[in-house]
Amino acid sequence: MKARVFVTLKNGVLDPQGKAIGHALNGLGFGAVGDVRAGKVIDLELHESNAEKARASVKEMCEKLLANTVIEKYEIELKA
Amino acid sequence: MKARVFVTLKNGVLDPQGKAIGHALNGLGFGAVGDVRAGKVIDLELHESNAEKARASVKEMCEKLLANTVIEKYEIELKA
Repeated sequence: MKARVFVTLKNGVLDPQGKAIGHALNGLGFGAVGDVRAGKVIDLELHESNAEKARASVKEMCEKLLANTVIEKYEIELKA
Repeated sequence: MKARVFVTLKNGVLDPQGKAIGHALNGLGFGAVGDVRAGKVIDLELHESNAEKARASVKEMCEKLLANTVIEKYEIELKA
């Protein structure tokens, strides 16, 4: 089973990396670009076929290591 | 319209960040974790309602700025 985890800054938290990307895109002539937020994506391969167990396990990984839950939020996507 | 762009290393390219995350997870007791790959996710807000135009524009952004296409690949997801 494969899991994809998105770790992004919470909504109120300032994102200088995203701002820089947005400015660079505007400077390159992409005027239609508004707000930009940057984050991380982590693709995991899991030796676990039970989706419920896999999700619980990935959630624990996020809380313990992958995300700083003070300023970041995470989303989990599972693929068989 | 919102776009989400995933930028990840191509398959043959060594990913030390992913390896480090994998080792750390194994060390924390998550033995079911196999290969780990790390990448970036970029959320863009676009002032463009035509999905086809939006996708073409985001593709151009990826080629020009967001991804280093020598070693990275990108995926684009659009949300209304």
